[in-house]
Amino acid sequence: MRMPENEQELKYSRLREAMRGDNADACLISLNIHHYYFTGEVFNGYLYITTESGPCYFLIRPSGPDAENRYNIRKPEEIPGILAGLGISLPRRLWLEADELPYSAYVRLKHIFRPESEGNASAAFRQLRMIKTPWEIRQLRHSARQHEAVYREIPACYRPGMTDLELQIAVENRMRQHGSIGHFRAFGANMDIFMGSLLAGENAGTPSPFDFALGGAGMHASTPIGANGTVLAEGMSVMVDMSGNYTAYMTDMTRVFSVGKLKDEAYAAHRVALEMENWLEEQARPGMICSDIYGYALETARQAGWGENFMGTRLQARFVGHGVGLQINELPVLAPRCDTPLQPGMVFAFEPKFVLPGTGAVGIENTWLVTEGGVEKLTCLPEEIIPLS
Amino acid sequence: MRMPENEQELKYSRLREAMRGDNADACLISLNIHHYYFTGEVFNGYLYITTESGPCYFLIRPSGPDAENRYNIRKPEEIPGILAGLGISLPRRLWLEADELPYSAYVRLKHIFRPESEGNASAAFRQLRMIKTPWEIRQLRHSARQHEAVYREIPACYRPGMTDLELQIAVENRMRQHGSIGHFRAFGANMDIFMGSLLAGENAGTPSPFDFALGGAGMHASTPIGANGTVLAEGMSVMVDMSGNYTAYMTDMTRVFSVGKLKDEAYAAHRVALEMENWLEEQARPGMICSDIYGYALETARQAGWGENFMGTRLQARFVGHGVGLQINELPVLAPRCDTPLQPGMVFAFEPKFVLPGTGAVGIENTWLVTEGGVEKLTCLPEEIIPLS
Repeated sequence: MRMPENEQELKYSRLREAMRGDNADACLISLNIHHYYFTGEVFNGYLYITTESGPCYFLIRPSGPDAENRYNIRKPEEIPGILAGLGISLPRRLWLEADELPYSAYVRLKHIFRPESEGNASAAFRQLRMIKTPWEIRQLRHSARQHEAVYREIPACYRPGMTDLELQIAVENRMRQHGSIGHFRAFGANMDIFMGSLLAGENAGTPSPFDFALGGAGMHASTPIGANGTVLAEGMSVMVDMSGNYTAYMTDMTRVFSVGKLKDEAYAAHRVALEMENWLEEQARPGMICSDIYGYALETARQAGWGENFMGTRLQARFVGHGVGLQINELPVLAPRCDTPLQPGMVFAFEPKFVLPGTGAVGIENTWLVTEGGVEKLTCLPEEIIPLS
Repeated sequence: MRMPENEQELKYSRLREAMRGDNADACLISLNIHHYYFTGEVFNGYLYITTESGPCYFLIRPSGPDAENRYNIRKPEEIPGILAGLGISLPRRLWLEADELPYSAYVRLKHIFRPESEGNASAAFRQLRMIKTPWEIRQLRHSARQHEAVYREIPACYRPGMTDLELQIAVENRMRQHGSIGHFRAFGANMDIFMGSLLAGENAGTPSPFDFALGGAGMHASTPIGANGTVLAEGMSVMVDMSGNYTAYMTDMTRVFSVGKLKDEAYAAHRVALEMENWLEEQARPGMICSDIYGYALETARQAGWGENFMGTRLQARFVGHGVGLQINELPVLAPRCDTPLQPGMVFAFEPKFVLPGTGAVGIENTWLVTEGGVEKLTCLPEEIIPLS
């Protein structure tokens, strides 16, 4: 699972191209997730790359890339002196992770390097990371295989009379046994979630403060999302949307289970979601605009008479899909104002879902790879509502 | 578990006092953890409080405190207009969460409010949160009871021939069954960890990039910490330091188990850690300086001949304890330059540990409450090395 060296070169070359496009001279990378993205490792320190030289690794703790140009430092203030010794001049325009670095940390780095201007490395990295490399796609395929294996075991986790939380805990245990890394990465300061979401019955309609597709009341006021202790009972749907972090690259997949038989309308709404998915599989290809996919899904939901139930009831999510990778909410977003065209190498989740009062949530979610000629489903498992017994 | 109303009043009153001490007029709070700290709820939006008025809640999503002064907004740019309508003037000095808010988010808020100066709410909140309220101490006591209950079940999770990860997964499952919230909060942008740490044998000495007491190689390059798949074998120590997040307020506790019998030196080093703990229990009281506790522990380790093994070998942590609460790494820090005196209401973990090549880690960790006359141990369980079989 170690990142091969040519993967690093590919990513650094893409990065340099993006930097040149913004007239940036250098990029200073502080965050674990981006250290991993570029080097395949997580370390305590900084990665510094210029359009002409580098990368250099400035390490506060002993671990880190086994590279020539690594320098031990106690604090980032030492970096300019080391660069001067290497004959590398300080940048005029410096990229920093503006959407993720804490304000104090950003200001500290800015004072150290004193660039004439700064560019937003966070936004640039989100664009770079949107197009996956072949190695990244292999990581995603590996996650998909484990994700599928765990979901196949969900019926075996069910016991009559258990709560949604008890079922979720049993699924979490299978996830870990199948290699889930555990730690769940999302973009944004306030996106707290633990291993994913399992929603049963009315709880599926409860809004949460988080920008995930659906909510749920949760078990504790400090993390108001997901399972809320609902006892699983006849006629309830159980929507399982647990994370696919079996490598650092996550797949996203939702399947729906039923306690006994659901109301007929639940199967009808579920079929509408599956139709949307079939449409995506047949129609999506490079060049298709993300907002058009959202528009199609919303219109299809409305025409089927389920517009009021689409992506929630009391609160309706204004997207029907999103990029996945190192984080669960990458680019592109399948949402009203996202005019990004699909491009080969994008990997995104498409998740048309309906919340039905009295039943719960139905619908589907799979992770898709955009290929040269269309899209390929990465998460392959039966998609009908599966009865638990 | 809902926060009582007088708890909010107490915290707001402490906050206003701190604001006045810094000549700040207002504080704008964006982060989940601080929303929870002040209101007992997590919501999508902003909490605004001035020294003279408020709090006001500006909510982007429908959930949030059921208070009089709540206002629905789409974006923070709407806040000044609403405040003007309420006759509340914009602040001259505004507190923002500078150590935690992403740079872009901070700058956006600064441009909206245009204060003459800003103060660092993150630093102020860490000071406020250092002294726990009676309600917070009750939350910690509840976490401690569940933490103890889970640790009592650890020997029952053991099977000969299992790996450290398999044991950890079994413990995680017990944690969830006993009410662990799952989501683990740490201060700092790069502190990735999942439910805690279990270290067996040589892996205990492997440095990690994270500022936790010990490291471990971890299972995946993207999260290099903790269990690494070591098969548990005769003569190894197994140090369990799993999180105590059974309420939003976490306790911290470490116990050591042995596979069969350890080398004599392991029991000797363990006894040194227990002696340090006895010293703390007898000597610590309000007024004792945190760096003196660290100094005592380091000196005791050296005099016992274990200085080179104290808090690691290849990399030695430069602290022997830390505050706990909503996050695992709160103030105070029991570290060389921390001249904070102990004060009633502080809750901290004290964790003298030794890494012994060929055996693994031994030592102890408990969570302590500073009282008027001394300290009280919150996490009460036998402290000897417990054999697994």
